[in-house]
Amino acid sequence: MALKARVLYDFHSENPGEISISENELVTLFSEEELEGWLEGENSRGEAGLFPASYVEIITSTVNNNNGFTSAKAQTPTHTSSDSQSHRGFGAGSSGGGSFHTSQGSDDDWDDDWDEGSSSATNAPQVLGSSPPMYPVTTSLPGRGSTQHQQNQQQHAKSSATVGRNLNRFSTFVKSGGEAFLLGEASAFVKDGDKIFVVMGKHGPEWQEDPYPFTCTIDDPTKQTKFKGMKSYMSYGLTPTHTNVQVNRRYKHFDWLYARLVERFPVISVPHLPEKQATGRFEEDFISKRRKGLIWWMNHMTSHPVLAQCDVFQHFLTCGADEKAWKQGKRKAEKDELVGSNFFLTISTPDVPLDLQEVESKIEGFKTFTKRMDENIVVVNTTINEFARKQMTGFKKEYQKVGQSFQLLSQAFEMDQQAYSAGLNKAIAYTGEAYETIGEYFAEQPRQDLDPISDLLDLYRGHLANFPDIIHVQKGALTKVRDCPKQEGDLHNRCNIISCATLAEIQHFHRTRVRDFRSQMQHHLRQQINFFQKITAKLEDAFQRYNDDQQD
Amino acid sequence: MALKARVLYDFHSENPGEISISENELVTLFSEEELEGWLEGENSRGEAGLFPASYVEIITSTVNNNNGFTSAKAQTPTHTSSDSQSHRGFGAGSSGGGSFHTSQGSDDDWDDDWDEGSSSATNAPQVLGSSPPMYPVTTSLPGRGSTQHQQNQQQHAKSSATVGRNLNRFSTFVKSGGEAFLLGEASAFVKDGDKIFVVMGKHGPEWQEDPYPFTCTIDDPTKQTKFKGMKSYMSYGLTPTHTNVQVNRRYKHFDWLYARLVERFPVISVPHLPEKQATGRFEEDFISKRRKGLIWWMNHMTSHPVLAQCDVFQHFLTCGADEKAWKQGKRKAEKDELVGSNFFLTISTPDVPLDLQEVESKIEGFKTFTKRMDENIVVVNTTINEFARKQMTGFKKEYQKVGQSFQLLSQAFEMDQQAYSAGLNKAIAYTGEAYETIGEYFAEQPRQDLDPISDLLDLYRGHLANFPDIIHVQKGALTKVRDCPKQEGDLHNRCNIISCATLAEIQHFHRTRVRDFRSQMQHHLRQQINFFQKITAKLEDAFQRYNDDQQD
Repeated sequence: MALKARVLYDFHSENPGEISISENELVTLFSEEELEGWLEGENSRGEAGLFPASYVEIITSTVNNNNGFTSAKAQTPTHTSSDSQSHRGFGAGSSGGGSFHTSQGSDDDWDDDWDEGSSSATNAPQVLGSSPPMYPVTTSLPGRGSTQHQQNQQQHAKSSATVGRNLNRFSTFVKSGGEAFLLGEASAFVKDGDKIFVVMGKHGPEWQEDPYPFTCTIDDPTKQTKFKGMKSYMSYGLTPTHTNVQVNRRYKHFDWLYARLVERFPVISVPHLPEKQATGRFEEDFISKRRKGLIWWMNHMTSHPVLAQCDVFQHFLTCGADEKAWKQGKRKAEKDELVGSNFFLTISTPDVPLDLQEVESKIEGFKTFTKRMDENIVVVNTTINEFARKQMTGFKKEYQKVGQSFQLLSQAFEMDQQAYSAGLNKAIAYTGEAYETIGEYFAEQPRQDLDPISDLLDLYRGHLANFPDIIHVQKGALTKVRDCPKQEGDLHNRCNIISCATLAEIQHFHRTRVRDFRSQMQHHLRQQINFFQKITAKLEDAFQRYNDDQQD
Repeated sequence: MALKARVLYDFHSENPGEISISENELVTLFSEEELEGWLEGENSRGEAGLFPASYVEIITSTVNNNNGFTSAKAQTPTHTSSDSQSHRGFGAGSSGGGSFHTSQGSDDDWDDDWDEGSSSATNAPQVLGSSPPMYPVTTSLPGRGSTQHQQNQQQHAKSSATVGRNLNRFSTFVKSGGEAFLLGEASAFVKDGDKIFVVMGKHGPEWQEDPYPFTCTIDDPTKQTKFKGMKSYMSYGLTPTHTNVQVNRRYKHFDWLYARLVERFPVISVPHLPEKQATGRFEEDFISKRRKGLIWWMNHMTSHPVLAQCDVFQHFLTCGADEKAWKQGKRKAEKDELVGSNFFLTISTPDVPLDLQEVESKIEGFKTFTKRMDENIVVVNTTINEFARKQMTGFKKEYQKVGQSFQLLSQAFEMDQQAYSAGLNKAIAYTGEAYETIGEYFAEQPRQDLDPISDLLDLYRGHLANFPDIIHVQKGALTKVRDCPKQEGDLHNRCNIISCATLAEIQHFHRTRVRDFRSQMQHHLRQQINFFQKITAKLEDAFQRYNDDQQD
């Protein structure tokens, strides 16, 4: 009997050798054995090829009753923790329980080239989450155009799925440690320095402000080589304002840090890292895009009172070239006890406990909000990407065609060599050039004022993908309290802690959102105003030529 | 044996019942009899229907030698002068000998509704010219879009044919009276008041300037009725500045005047009237377009030293509502003896005769110039019409989509009712509206700055269609002089007169061209500058909302 698997999520083939599969479709497997995260098989349309192992569940028929579907036992493919990485792109929708998956590289594999194309095994999709796992983008960086459009469409589909469907989220409550904490099973020694304070602000619970706020710049990355030039990688120079000392970090260091933060802070939305790119990593466009993404990421890190101050992030930002010190801090972070359920032990709440009814209603409101925001920013993103593409192609072309036709007119007129005609001919030729230049302006503009919005939306889609899990931890706690009315005292206390942390995080999200969108819209409009003023100036310049001409 | 006809010019069917036919194609006629300028038959693709009679020549096989083509005698369909009208649209390419065709309505048929849709017989194409006759546009006024585009393409084809091919132009030299005058056969009494002076200017021969220059305004037309409201027509109020008295004229009066001018002035380029439109004459768009066309036409009339001062034009501009006086002037104009060959008797040249070699070279240069200008303004016209269409559809749509997506963003944000969020939400909503408004600006703009250029180009395409005939008269004269070296004296004198008139007309064309294109380009740029400033102001307004917000 042929080995079958049921498709869990739509997968669109993007490279030769891959096949597209659709949710609920039955596929025939050629072998149960995975090849670096991929399975080989045939889809229902008879196409044979590769698809991500984590997108399907293998059907193990225990009873052969001609109704294999219902009695089939789903078996998710197994991965060892060491060959799957929790790297997540902006807006990649890879939320789910995977957020709490530990990517704990040992010291020995630290120097492996995680972000090299050669180690493709590490690009295998994750499987621990309940949402569609992030699919590693192995195509070269998509330019503007249909590819990007398709990608947007796909991201749309993925993200909607993430926020929309809450498949079996109960496990999140368990995995996050929320349940264990609520039931009083968490225990660890919390130093004063580890304490995280939630205070009551004007608009509800909020994280206590960072008394020593700082920011951190990221320089243009430089290409480094090792093994006598056999291997190369990009290195980013980071300079935090509170030390003003530059440290060098690779993408894999960011990736490692990200994994630490995710396991450390169950109800904090850790900003997603910019999309990991296996091929074409040194292409200028990609480098610039990733750097911009890292700058956004860094900005969200340093402006988060809890994340900014935490030890592992400080280690990442301040540890210099001393290899030994680096490894020491690294090991310390990986052995941190205050992860998962113990995280909640570090939280210090305001004196007056929250009204849980009110908390529930706030959380419900926020859930609706994130769903709508996620849906709508997908539309905005698609629209502005399409608008950018139109400006770079259609708009540019139209202005250039008009410019060229004016030049044709002037060329015809130049065949009349009368003195009184010369000035006009030159002016028309200049007008033609002006229109061609305006066409160029249109083509260059999106980079200034649309791409940044798109980057911002990507970052927020990452946050929105985080929140269903955070909300779920909170909801799990509330349900538990309701289910066990007898143990009210302690359970209420602990539920209050989870609620305070969750609401503080939501508050932080809103504040950051308002700040980011305000500044980005301002930036956008300022750039647009400059743009149209530049066009006006060009046209005024052309207009002037006709006056000069008349004075002749 | 079936009656056949050979197709002279491409004709594209535009209405049900018509069929398309191609140059050189053989068509089978169902009858030799024309129906209001149309013939019925079958094309080589087996399609049966109507096509313009003047687009084909009927083949009368005199010898049945199985080689009917070469021995066939072409017979152009006959028209009585009373049912064909010399109405010509801007850029319609209906030049050829038809320019000298007399449209001499008798007093009796003066009140017929020439410009009513009912008298479709008068819309039949002309046949006297050697160029493709003007095809009566009976479709409704084309809006922006593919129809207009097709029309442009078609005009392109027609016009190129006009300027490019000089089919049997010798007849023009004969018909214009040029030959008769050159051979000394013209004779008429020329009063001092009828004299037309060519003077030697800085750039060569030119028409003596009008000592009493004037202009003439054309008001919005009003709808008039007669026969107790059974018939209706549009009446234009004209007010020349030299009398400042308004007179009322219908399109058919313009048409009559045009026919007088064409027969009166063989080497003057009489501006074409705006396209005659049989159906939908009272639609706002059409009325506005025709009025704009008449304004351009009037502008070219009053700025031409010879046309502006001539009796028939003055009669047209100044004769009031006195029916008797009008008919008197009308009859006088129709009996004018100084038409055709006699026109040249009225011309008074500078003392020093021109060097005929030099004249020939100038004429050659001008011929090349007109050909190139005609080709290039077709491209310009197509381009700016397409650009206008893009702005009214694509550009508008893109800006509106961006506007709508910003509004979606603000709608999502409004679900968060925190006080610090409200200002931003409003600002984003306003930005969305601003973009929608900018979309509208784009849609409205072409009417301001592209349509006028298109109108100008149409007018000039009419002039360019006139010049091949004018050049031909001049060339015919030069050839005649070269052929008869013995009669040098008188022949030279008369050839000099024709040359002076032709060069003066060319000079006038260039001056008007430089004036018109300069002012139109200035107008265009001024409008474009206003347009982009309006956009900038709108964006600045939106930008301001974010500042207000921040001050809250």
